Amino acid sequence: MKEVLLVGGGNMAWHLAPQLSDRQLEVTVLRARSRETRELWPVRQIVWDQLDEVRPNLLILAVADDAIGPISERLATVFPPETFVLHTSGATPAGSINEHFLHRGVLWPIRSLVKGGTVHPWTETPLVYFAETEDLRGSLKRLVEDLSQLTYFLGDAQRSTLHLCATISNNFVNALYQMSYQLCEEQDIPFAALLPIIRATAERQTPGPPKRWQTGAAFRGDTATMERHLQQLEEQPQLAAVYRLLSDLIAKQ
Amino acid sequence: MKEVLLVGGGNMAWHLAPQLSDRQLEVTVLRARSRETRELWPVRQIVWDQLDEVRPNLLILAVADDAIGPISERLATVFPPETFVLHTSGATPAGSINEHFLHRGVLWPIRSLVKGGTVHPWTETPLVYFAETEDLRGSLKRLVEDLSQLTYFLGDAQRSTLHLCATISNNFVNALYQMSYQLCEEQDIPFAALLPIIRATAERQTPGPPKRWQTGAAFRGDTATMERHLQQLEEQPQLAAVYRLLSDLIAKQ
Repeated sequence: MKEVLLVGGGNMAWHLAPQLSDRQLEVTVLRARSRETRELWPVRQIVWDQLDEVRPNLLILAVADDAIGPISERLATVFPPETFVLHTSGATPAGSINEHFLHRGVLWPIRSLVKGGTVHPWTETPLVYFAETEDLRGSLKRLVEDLSQLTYFLGDAQRSTLHLCATISNNFVNALYQMSYQLCEEQDIPFAALLPIIRATAERQTPGPPKRWQTGAAFRGDTATMERHLQQLEEQPQLAAVYRLLSDLIAKQ
Repeated sequence: MKEVLLVGGGNMAWHLAPQLSDRQLEVTVLRARSRETRELWPVRQIVWDQLDEVRPNLLILAVADDAIGPISERLATVFPPETFVLHTSGATPAGSINEHFLHRGVLWPIRSLVKGGTVHPWTETPLVYFAETEDLRGSLKRLVEDLSQLTYFLGDAQRSTLHLCATISNNFVNALYQMSYQLCEEQDIPFAALLPIIRATAERQTPGPPKRWQTGAAFRGDTATMERHLQQLEEQPQLAAVYRLLSDLIAKQ
Protein backbone atom coordinates (compact mmCIF):
# COMPACT_ATOMS: atom_id res chain seq x y z
CA MET A 1 0.00 0.00 0.00
CA LYS A 2 2.55 2.57 -1.15
CA GLU A 3 0.83 4.46 -3.96
CA VAL A 4 -2.60 5.91 -3.28
CA LEU A 5 -5.05 7.41 -5.74
CA LEU A 6 -7.48 9.67 -3.90
CA VAL A 7 -10.59 10.41 -5.96
CA GLY A 8 -12.48 13.63 -5.25
CA GLY A 9 -11.97 17.34 -4.84
CA GLY A 10 -14.22 18.02 -1.85
CA ASN A 11 -13.67 18.58 1.85
CA MET A 12 -12.95 14.93 2.61
CA ALA A 13 -10.19 14.63 -0.02
CA TRP A 14 -8.79 18.00 1.02
CA HIS A 15 -8.49 16.96 4.68
CA LEU A 16 -7.35 13.38 3.90
CA ALA A 17 -4.60 14.10 1.34
CA PRO A 18 -2.11 15.75 3.75
CA GLN A 19 -2.73 13.08 6.44
CA LEU A 20 -1.82 10.33 3.95
CA SER A 21 1.18 12.04 2.40
CA ASP A 22 2.54 12.76 5.89
CA ARG A 23 2.59 8.96 6.35
CA GLN A 24 5.12 8.30 3.54
CA LEU A 25 2.43 7.36 1.04
CA GLU A 26 2.70 8.57 -2.53
CA VAL A 27 -0.63 10.33 -2.95
CA THR A 28 -2.16 11.51 -6.20
CA VAL A 29 -5.53 13.24 -6.30
CA LEU A 30 -7.88 12.52 -9.20
CA ARG A 31 -10.32 15.31 -9.84
CA ALA A 32 -13.07 15.80 -12.38
CA ARG A 33 -11.79 19.17 -13.49
CA SER A 34 -8.29 20.59 -13.52
CA ARG A 35 -9.08 24.25 -13.63
CA GLU A 36 -9.01 24.90 -9.88
CA THR A 37 -5.76 26.24 -8.47
CA ARG A 38 -3.32 23.36 -8.20
CA GLU A 39 -0.89 24.96 -5.80
CA LEU A 40 -3.47 24.91 -3.01
CA TRP A 41 -3.20 21.11 -2.87
CA PRO A 42 -0.14 19.66 -1.15
CA VAL A 43 -0.02 16.62 -3.47
CA ARG A 44 0.04 15.82 -7.18
CA GLN A 45 -3.23 16.24 -9.03
CA ILE A 46 -4.44 14.57 -12.21
CA VAL A 47 -7.62 14.45 -14.29
CA TRP A 48 -9.30 11.36 -15.77
CA ASP A 49 -7.31 11.51 -19.05
CA GLN A 50 -4.08 11.08 -17.10
CA LEU A 51 -5.07 7.86 -15.31
CA ASP A 52 -2.47 5.80 -17.22
CA GLU A 53 0.25 7.77 -15.44
CA VAL A 54 -0.48 6.10 -12.08
CA ARG A 55 -0.39 2.51 -10.76
CA PRO A 56 -2.00 2.75 -7.33
CA ASN A 57 -2.22 -0.14 -4.85
CA LEU A 58 -5.03 1.67 -3.11
CA LEU A 59 -7.95 3.71 -4.41
CA ILE A 60 -9.83 5.94 -1.97
CA LEU A 61 -13.17 7.24 -3.18
CA ALA A 62 -13.74 10.48 -1.30
CA VAL A 63 -16.86 11.29 -3.31
CA ALA A 64 -20.58 11.83 -2.70
CA ASP A 65 -22.38 8.68 -1.50
CA ASP A 66 -24.34 8.24 -4.72
CA ALA A 67 -21.18 8.63 -6.84
CA ILE A 68 -19.42 5.63 -5.24
CA GLY A 69 -21.16 3.14 -7.58
CA PRO A 70 -20.70 5.00 -10.89
CA ILE A 71 -17.13 6.16 -10.21
CA SER A 72 -15.93 2.73 -9.05
CA GLU A 73 -17.55 1.23 -12.18
CA ARG A 74 -15.54 3.58 -14.34
CA LEU A 75 -12.31 2.85 -12.43
CA ALA A 76 -12.99 -0.88 -12.87
CA THR A 77 -12.26 -0.51 -16.58
CA VAL A 78 -8.76 0.85 -15.78
CA PHE A 79 -7.38 -0.87 -12.67
CA PRO A 80 -6.95 -4.60 -11.92
CA PRO A 81 -9.33 -6.48 -9.56
CA GLU A 82 -6.54 -6.89 -6.98
CA THR A 83 -6.40 -3.15 -6.29
CA PHE A 84 -7.56 -2.28 -2.77
CA VAL A 85 -10.56 0.09 -2.91
CA LEU A 86 -12.10 2.13 -0.06
CA HIS A 87 -14.87 4.64 0.15
CA THR A 88 -15.15 7.25 2.92
CA SER A 89 -18.89 7.23 3.61
CA GLY A 90 -20.35 6.50 7.03
CA ALA A 91 -23.79 5.76 5.67
CA THR A 92 -23.00 3.54 2.63
CA PRO A 93 -22.27 -0.23 2.58
CA ALA A 94 -18.83 -1.34 1.36
CA GLY A 95 -20.65 -3.40 -1.29
CA SER A 96 -21.65 -0.27 -3.18
CA ILE A 97 -18.13 -0.27 -4.63
CA ASN A 98 -18.13 -2.04 -8.03
CA GLU A 99 -17.79 -5.82 -7.66
CA HIS A 100 -14.94 -5.93 -10.19
CA PHE A 101 -12.76 -5.12 -7.18
CA LEU A 102 -11.97 -8.05 -4.88
CA HIS A 103 -10.83 -6.06 -1.82
CA ARG A 104 -13.43 -3.52 -0.87
CA GLY A 105 -13.56 -1.52 2.33
CA VAL A 106 -14.31 1.72 4.12
CA LEU A 107 -12.34 4.42 5.94
CA TRP A 108 -14.69 6.86 7.69
CA PRO A 109 -13.42 9.59 10.02
CA ILE A 110 -16.05 10.69 12.57
CA ARG A 111 -15.54 14.33 11.98
CA SER A 112 -17.53 17.24 10.61
CA LEU A 113 -15.46 18.67 7.79
CA VAL A 114 -16.20 22.27 6.96
CA LYS A 115 -14.42 24.31 4.34
CA GLY A 116 -12.41 26.94 6.15
CA GLY A 117 -12.28 24.81 9.29
CA THR A 118 -8.82 24.28 10.77
CA VAL A 119 -6.95 21.18 9.61
CA HIS A 120 -6.04 19.47 12.86
CA PRO A 121 -3.82 16.40 13.06
CA TRP A 122 -5.94 13.29 12.97
CA THR A 123 -4.35 11.54 15.95
CA GLU A 124 -7.48 12.16 18.04
CA THR A 125 -10.03 11.74 15.28
CA PRO A 126 -11.89 8.42 15.62
CA LEU A 127 -11.39 6.38 12.44
CA VAL A 128 -13.96 3.73 11.62
CA TYR A 129 -12.75 1.14 9.14
CA PHE A 130 -14.06 -1.96 7.42
CA ALA A 131 -12.68 -4.49 4.95
CA GLU A 132 -14.35 -7.38 3.16
CA THR A 133 -11.10 -9.40 2.93
CA GLU A 134 -8.37 -10.29 5.40
CA ASP A 135 -5.67 -8.90 3.08
CA LEU A 136 -7.24 -5.45 2.98
CA ARG A 137 -8.09 -5.58 6.68
CA GLY A 138 -4.44 -6.11 7.66
CA SER A 139 -3.12 -3.26 5.51
CA LEU A 140 -5.92 -0.93 6.48
CA LYS A 141 -5.49 -1.64 10.19
CA ARG A 142 -1.82 -0.59 9.95
CA LEU A 143 -2.77 2.57 8.06
CA VAL A 144 -5.55 3.73 10.45
CA GLU A 145 -3.47 2.96 13.53
CA ASP A 146 -0.71 5.07 12.06
CA LEU A 147 -3.15 7.95 11.49
CA SER A 148 -5.07 7.91 14.78
CA GLN A 149 -5.11 6.59 18.33
CA LEU A 150 -8.85 5.92 18.09
CA THR A 151 -9.73 3.21 15.59
CA TYR A 152 -12.83 1.05 15.35
CA PHE A 153 -13.37 -1.93 13.05
CA LEU A 154 -17.14 -1.92 12.45
CA GLY A 155 -19.37 -3.64 9.90
CA ASP A 156 -21.81 -1.84 7.60
CA ALA A 157 -24.78 -1.95 9.99
CA GLN A 158 -22.81 -0.69 13.00
CA ARG A 159 -21.10 2.03 10.97
CA SER A 160 -24.46 3.14 9.62
CA THR A 161 -25.88 3.44 13.15
CA LEU A 162 -22.81 5.34 14.27
CA HIS A 163 -23.25 7.69 11.30
CA LEU A 164 -26.83 8.32 12.40
CA CYS A 165 -25.58 8.98 15.95
CA ALA A 166 -22.91 11.39 14.68
CA THR A 167 -25.66 13.24 12.78
CA ILE A 168 -27.71 13.48 15.98
CA SER A 169 -24.76 14.53 18.16
CA ASN A 170 -23.34 17.04 15.71
CA ASN A 171 -25.84 18.31 13.09
CA PHE A 172 -28.94 18.19 15.31
CA VAL A 173 -27.08 19.67 18.25
CA ASN A 174 -25.80 22.44 16.00
CA ALA A 175 -29.41 23.08 14.90
CA LEU A 176 -30.38 23.56 18.57
CA TYR A 177 -27.48 26.00 19.02
CA GLN A 178 -28.77 27.91 15.99
CA MET A 179 -32.32 27.90 17.44
CA SER A 180 -30.91 29.46 20.64
CA TYR A 181 -28.92 31.95 18.62
CA GLN A 182 -32.03 33.12 16.76
CA LEU A 183 -34.08 33.49 19.95
CA CYS A 184 -31.26 35.52 21.55
CA GLU A 185 -30.86 37.69 18.48
CA GLU A 186 -34.57 38.60 18.43
CA GLN A 187 -34.22 40.16 21.89
CA ASP A 188 -30.74 41.58 21.55
CA ILE A 189 -29.22 39.08 24.02
CA PRO A 190 -25.58 38.15 23.37
CA PHE A 191 -25.33 34.47 22.30
CA ALA A 192 -21.83 34.56 23.87
CA ALA A 193 -23.52 34.25 27.28
CA LEU A 194 -24.39 30.65 26.35
CA LEU A 195 -20.94 29.53 25.19
CA PRO A 196 -19.74 28.39 28.66
CA ILE A 197 -22.79 26.15 29.25
CA ILE A 198 -22.59 24.81 25.67
CA ARG A 199 -18.97 23.79 26.23
CA ALA A 200 -19.52 22.46 29.76
CA THR A 201 -22.39 20.23 28.58
CA ALA A 202 -20.18 18.70 25.88
CA GLU A 203 -17.06 18.44 28.03
CA ARG A 204 -18.66 16.58 30.89
CA GLN A 205 -19.73 13.70 28.65
CA THR A 206 -17.95 10.43 29.37
CA PRO A 207 -18.24 6.99 27.77
CA GLY A 208 -21.21 6.47 30.16
CA PRO A 209 -24.86 7.54 29.74
CA PRO A 210 -25.40 11.31 29.21
CA LYS A 211 -28.66 10.91 31.13
CA ARG A 212 -26.77 11.21 34.41
CA TRP A 213 -26.14 14.89 33.61
CA GLN A 214 -29.75 15.73 32.80
CA THR A 215 -31.27 18.73 34.59
CA GLY A 216 -34.06 21.18 33.80
CA ALA A 217 -37.82 21.57 33.78
CA ALA A 218 -38.67 18.51 31.65
CA PHE A 219 -36.44 16.31 33.78
CA ARG A 220 -37.98 17.61 37.03
CA GLY A 221 -41.50 17.46 35.61
CA ASP A 222 -41.80 21.20 36.30
CA THR A 223 -44.83 21.95 34.11
CA ALA A 224 -45.10 25.61 35.20
CA THR A 225 -41.66 26.44 33.75
CA MET A 226 -42.39 24.41 30.61
CA GLU A 227 -45.63 26.35 30.11
CA ARG A 228 -43.76 29.64 30.50
CA HIS A 229 -41.18 28.51 27.93
CA LEU A 230 -43.90 27.47 25.49
CA GLN A 231 -45.60 30.86 25.84
CA GLN A 232 -42.36 32.45 24.64
CA LEU A 233 -42.50 30.27 21.52
CA GLU A 234 -46.20 30.97 20.90
CA GLU A 235 -45.58 32.67 17.57
CA GLN A 236 -43.03 30.14 16.38
CA PRO A 237 -44.96 26.87 16.04
CA GLN A 238 -42.02 24.89 14.64
CA LEU A 239 -39.80 25.84 17.59
CA ALA A 240 -42.65 25.06 19.99
CA ALA A 241 -42.96 21.62 18.37
CA VAL A 242 -39.22 21.02 18.88
CA TYR A 243 -39.61 22.10 22.52
CA ARG A 244 -42.56 19.76 23.13
CA LEU A 245 -40.97 16.76 21.44
CA LEU A 246 -37.61 17.06 23.19
CA SER A 247 -39.22 17.69 26.59
CA ASP A 248 -41.29 14.57 26.02
CA LEU A 249 -38.14 12.65 25.05
CA ILE A 250 -36.38 13.75 28.27
CA ALA A 251 -39.39 12.70 30.37
CA LYS A 252 -39.24 9.21 28.85
CA GLN A 253 -35.45 8.72 28.76
CA MET B 1 -23.89 44.01 51.79
CA LYS B 2 -21.72 42.24 54.37
CA GLU B 3 -23.99 39.65 55.96
CA VAL B 4 -25.80 37.26 53.64
CA LEU B 5 -28.57 34.82 54.46
CA LEU B 6 -28.73 32.13 51.82
CA VAL B 7 -32.03 30.27 51.87
CA GLY B 8 -32.10 26.69 50.55
CA GLY B 9 -30.32 23.38 50.81
CA GLY B 10 -30.21 22.35 47.15
CA ASN B 11 -27.57 22.38 44.43
CA MET B 12 -27.74 26.15 43.86
CA ALA B 13 -27.13 27.00 47.54
CA TRP B 14 -24.42 24.36 47.76
CA HIS B 15 -22.52 25.85 44.81
CA LEU B 16 -23.19 29.49 45.73
CA ALA B 17 -22.22 29.40 49.44
CA PRO B 18 -18.45 28.87 48.97
CA GLN B 19 -18.33 31.48 46.17
CA LEU B 20 -19.84 34.10 48.47
CA SER B 21 -17.81 33.25 51.57
CA ASP B 22 -14.63 33.37 49.45
CA ARG B 23 -15.55 37.03 48.77
CA GLN B 24 -15.33 38.15 52.42
CA LEU B 25 -19.08 37.93 52.96
CA GLU B 26 -20.45 36.48 56.15
CA VAL B 27 -22.67 33.74 54.84
CA THR B 28 -25.28 31.81 56.80
CA VAL B 29 -27.40 29.12 55.19
CA LEU B 30 -31.03 28.77 56.23
CA ARG B 31 -32.41 25.30 55.70
CA ALA B 32 -35.76 23.72 56.34
CA ARG B 33 -34.31 20.79 58.23
CA SER B 34 -31.15 20.54 60.31
CA ARG B 35 -30.69 16.81 60.26
CA GLU B 36 -28.40 16.61 57.25
CA THR B 37 -24.69 16.50 57.96
CA ARG B 38 -23.57 20.01 58.84
CA GLU B 39 -19.87 19.53 58.37
CA LEU B 40 -20.32 19.10 54.61
CA TRP B 41 -21.24 22.77 54.33
CA PRO B 42 -18.38 25.28 54.45
CA VAL B 43 -20.52 27.94 56.18
CA ARG B 44 -22.75 28.31 59.21
CA GLN B 45 -26.16 26.71 58.98
CA ILE B 46 -29.35 27.58 60.80
CA VAL B 47 -32.99 26.47 60.76
CA TRP B 48 -36.08 28.69 60.81
CA ASP B 49 -36.29 28.84 64.61
CA GLN B 50 -32.86 30.45 64.75
CA LEU B 51 -33.67 33.36 62.44
CA ASP B 52 -33.36 35.92 65.26
CA GLU B 53 -29.65 35.11 65.46
CA VAL B 54 -28.90 36.82 62.12
CA ARG B 55 -29.25 40.37 60.75
CA PRO B 56 -28.54 40.01 57.05
CA ASN B 57 -28.28 42.93 54.62
CA LEU B 58 -28.93 40.53 51.76
CA LEU B 59 -31.27 37.56 51.42
CA ILE B 60 -30.67 35.12 48.56
CA LEU B 61 -33.52 32.73 47.86
CA ALA B 62 -31.91 29.68 46.27
CA VAL B 63 -35.16 27.74 46.30
CA ALA B 64 -37.53 26.12 43.81
CA ASP B 65 -39.28 28.65 41.53
CA ASP B 66 -42.71 28.13 43.09
CA ALA B 67 -41.29 28.53 46.61
CA ILE B 68 -39.99 32.08 45.99
CA GLY B 69 -43.40 33.64 46.74
CA PRO B 70 -44.28 31.69 49.93
CA ILE B 71 -40.77 31.77 51.42
CA SER B 72 -40.29 35.52 50.82
CA GLU B 73 -43.73 36.10 52.38
CA ARG B 74 -42.62 34.27 55.50
CA LEU B 75 -39.30 36.17 55.62
CA ALA B 76 -41.25 39.45 55.29
CA THR B 77 -42.59 38.91 58.81
CA VAL B 78 -39.02 38.82 60.17
CA PHE B 79 -36.79 41.22 58.19
CA PRO B 80 -37.24 44.94 57.46
CA PRO B 81 -38.37 46.22 54.02
CA GLU B 82 -34.92 47.74 53.36
CA THR B 83 -33.25 44.32 53.22
CA PHE B 84 -31.97 43.51 49.74
CA VAL B 85 -33.60 40.32 48.40
CA LEU B 86 -32.60 38.21 45.39
CA HIS B 87 -33.83 34.99 43.92
CA THR B 88 -31.70 32.74 41.72
CA SER B 89 -34.23 31.65 39.08
CA GLY B 90 -33.70 32.24 35.37
CA ALA B 91 -37.36 31.72 34.54
CA THR B 92 -39.11 33.75 37.29
CA PRO B 93 -39.76 37.54 37.39
CA ALA B 94 -38.12 39.54 40.19
CA GLY B 95 -41.64 40.62 41.21
CA SER B 96 -42.45 37.17 42.49
CA ILE B 97 -40.53 38.12 45.64
CA ASN B 98 -42.95 39.42 48.32
CA GLU B 99 -43.68 43.14 47.86
CA HIS B 100 -42.88 43.87 51.50
CA PHE B 101 -39.30 44.11 50.28
CA LEU B 102 -38.36 47.35 48.52
CA HIS B 103 -35.18 46.17 46.80
CA ARG B 104 -35.85 43.04 44.80
CA GLY B 105 -33.56 41.45 42.25
CA VAL B 106 -32.14 38.35 40.64
CA LEU B 107 -28.77 36.61 40.48
CA TRP B 108 -28.86 33.74 37.97
CA PRO B 109 -25.74 31.79 36.98
CA ILE B 110 -26.02 30.21 33.52
CA ARG B 111 -24.80 26.87 34.63
CA SER B 112 -26.17 23.37 34.95
CA LEU B 113 -25.66 22.37 38.57
CA VAL B 114 -25.56 18.65 39.20
CA LYS B 115 -24.97 16.99 42.55
CA GLY B 116 -21.58 15.34 42.41
CA GLY B 117 -20.44 17.70 39.65
CA THR B 118 -17.13 19.44 40.28
CA VAL B 119 -17.30 22.86 41.95
CA HIS B 120 -15.33 25.10 39.61
CA PRO B 121 -14.47 28.70 40.39
CA TRP B 122 -17.15 30.95 38.99
CA THR B 123 -14.86 33.40 37.22
CA GLU B 124 -15.93 32.07 33.82
CA THR B 125 -19.56 31.38 34.69
CA PRO B 126 -21.85 33.96 33.08
CA LEU B 127 -23.86 35.71 35.79
CA VAL B 128 -27.12 37.33 34.81
CA TYR B 129 -28.37 39.90 37.31
CA PHE B 130 -31.31 42.23 37.72
CA ALA B 131 -32.39 44.80 40.30
CA GLU B 132 -35.59 46.82 40.60
CA THR B 133 -33.84 49.72 42.41
CA GLU B 134 -30.64 51.67 41.78
CA ASP B 135 -29.36 50.95 45.31
CA LEU B 136 -29.56 47.21 44.85
CA ARG B 137 -28.22 47.46 41.30
CA GLY B 138 -25.03 49.18 42.44
CA SER B 139 -24.29 46.69 45.21
CA LEU B 140 -25.19 43.70 43.09
CA LYS B 141 -23.04 44.90 40.18
CA ARG B 142 -20.00 45.02 42.47
CA LEU B 143 -20.76 41.56 43.82
CA VAL B 144 -21.26 39.84 40.43
CA GLU B 145 -18.19 41.53 38.93
CA ASP B 146 -16.20 40.25 41.86
CA LEU B 147 -17.49 36.72 41.27
CA SER B 148 -17.19 36.48 37.48
CA GLN B 149 -15.69 38.08 34.39
CA LEU B 150 -18.92 37.51 32.46
CA THR B 151 -21.83 39.55 33.80
CA TYR B 152 -25.06 40.59 32.09
CA PHE B 153 -27.68 43.01 33.42
CA LEU B 154 -30.92 41.76 31.85
CA GLY B 155 -34.59 42.41 32.59
CA ASP B 156 -37.16 39.72 33.34
CA ALA B 157 -38.17 39.13 29.70
CA GLN B 158 -34.62 38.87 28.41
CA ARG B 159 -33.54 36.63 31.27
CA SER B 160 -36.53 34.40 30.67
CA THR B 161 -35.61 34.03 26.97
CA LEU B 162 -32.01 33.31 27.91
CA HIS B 163 -33.23 30.66 30.36
CA LEU B 164 -35.22 29.05 27.54
CA CYS B 165 -32.09 29.17 25.34
CA ALA B 166 -29.95 27.61 28.09
CA THR B 167 -32.54 24.82 28.34
CA ILE B 168 -32.30 24.26 24.58
CA SER B 169 -28.48 24.41 24.50
CA ASN B 170 -27.95 22.24 27.55
CA ASN B 171 -30.92 20.01 28.48
CA PHE B 172 -32.13 19.36 24.93
CA VAL B 173 -28.60 18.82 23.65
CA ASN B 174 -27.98 16.39 26.50
CA ALA B 175 -31.17 14.55 25.48
CA LEU B 176 -29.75 14.16 21.97
CA TYR B 177 -26.49 12.80 23.41
CA GLN B 178 -28.56 10.30 25.41
CA MET B 179 -30.50 9.35 22.25
CA SER B 180 -27.16 8.62 20.52
CA TYR B 181 -25.95 6.69 23.54
CA GLN B 182 -29.01 4.43 23.49
CA LEU B 183 -28.73 3.75 19.76
CA CYS B 184 -25.03 2.88 20.17
CA GLU B 185 -25.72 0.65 23.16
CA GLU B 186 -28.33 -1.38 21.26
CA GLN B 187 -25.68 -2.38 18.74
CA ASP B 188 -22.72 -2.67 21.07
CA ILE B 189 -20.98 0.38 19.61
CA PRO B 190 -18.80 2.37 22.06
CA PHE B 191 -20.35 5.80 22.70
CA ALA B 192 -16.75 6.98 23.33
CA ALA B 193 -16.29 7.08 19.53
CA LEU B 194 -18.61 10.10 19.49
CA LEU B 195 -16.92 12.13 22.24
CA PRO B 196 -14.45 13.93 19.91
CA ILE B 197 -17.19 15.14 17.51
CA ILE B 198 -19.44 16.12 20.46
CA ARG B 199 -16.65 18.27 21.89
CA ALA B 200 -15.55 19.70 18.53
CA THR B 201 -19.12 20.79 17.71
CA ALA B 202 -19.37 22.67 21.01
CA GLU B 203 -15.86 24.09 20.92
CA ARG B 204 -16.13 25.64 17.49
CA GLN B 205 -19.08 27.79 18.48
CA THR B 206 -18.36 31.52 18.54
CA PRO B 207 -20.55 34.52 19.37
CA GLY B 208 -21.66 34.31 15.69
CA PRO B 209 -24.40 32.10 14.14
CA PRO B 210 -23.91 28.32 14.66
CA LYS B 211 -25.50 27.86 11.23
CA ARG B 212 -22.14 28.49 9.59
CA TRP B 213 -20.93 25.14 10.94
CA GLN B 214 -23.90 23.14 9.73
CA THR B 215 -23.15 20.00 7.69
CA GLY B 216 -24.96 16.73 7.03
CA ALA B 217 -27.76 15.16 5.05
CA ALA B 218 -30.56 17.57 6.05
CA PHE B 219 -28.35 20.57 5.28
CA ARG B 220 -27.35 19.17 1.86
CA GLY B 221 -30.90 18.05 1.09
CA ASP B 222 -29.58 14.49 0.74
CA THR B 223 -32.89 12.62 0.96
CA ALA B 224 -31.33 9.18 0.26
CA THR B 225 -29.22 9.34 3.43
CA MET B 226 -32.14 10.72 5.43
CA GLU B 227 -34.32 7.82 4.27
CA ARG B 228 -31.62 5.34 5.30
CA HIS B 229 -31.39 6.97 8.73
CA LEU B 230 -35.16 6.86 9.17
CA GLN B 231 -35.22 3.16 8.28
CA GLN B 232 -32.88 2.57 11.21
CA LEU B 233 -35.38 4.27 13.50
CA GLU B 234 -38.36 2.39 12.06
CA GLU B 235 -39.18 0.65 15.31
CA GLN B 236 -38.65 3.74 17.47
CA PRO B 237 -41.37 6.17 16.37
CA GLN B 238 -40.49 8.85 18.95
CA LEU B 239 -36.85 8.94 17.82
CA ALA B 240 -37.98 9.00 14.19
CA ALA B 241 -40.20 12.00 15.02
CA VAL B 242 -37.21 13.79 16.59
CA TYR B 243 -35.16 13.01 13.46
CA ARG B 244 -37.85 14.35 11.11
CA LEU B 245 -38.51 17.51 13.08
CA LEU B 246 -34.85 18.47 13.52
CA SER B 247 -34.03 17.69 9.87
CA ASP B 248 -36.91 19.93 8.89
CA LEU B 249 -35.62 22.65 11.23
CA ILE B 250 -32.15 22.47 9.64
CA ALA B 251 -33.65 22.72 6.15
CA LYS B 252 -35.48 25.93 7.14
CA GLN B 253 -32.74 27.56 9.25
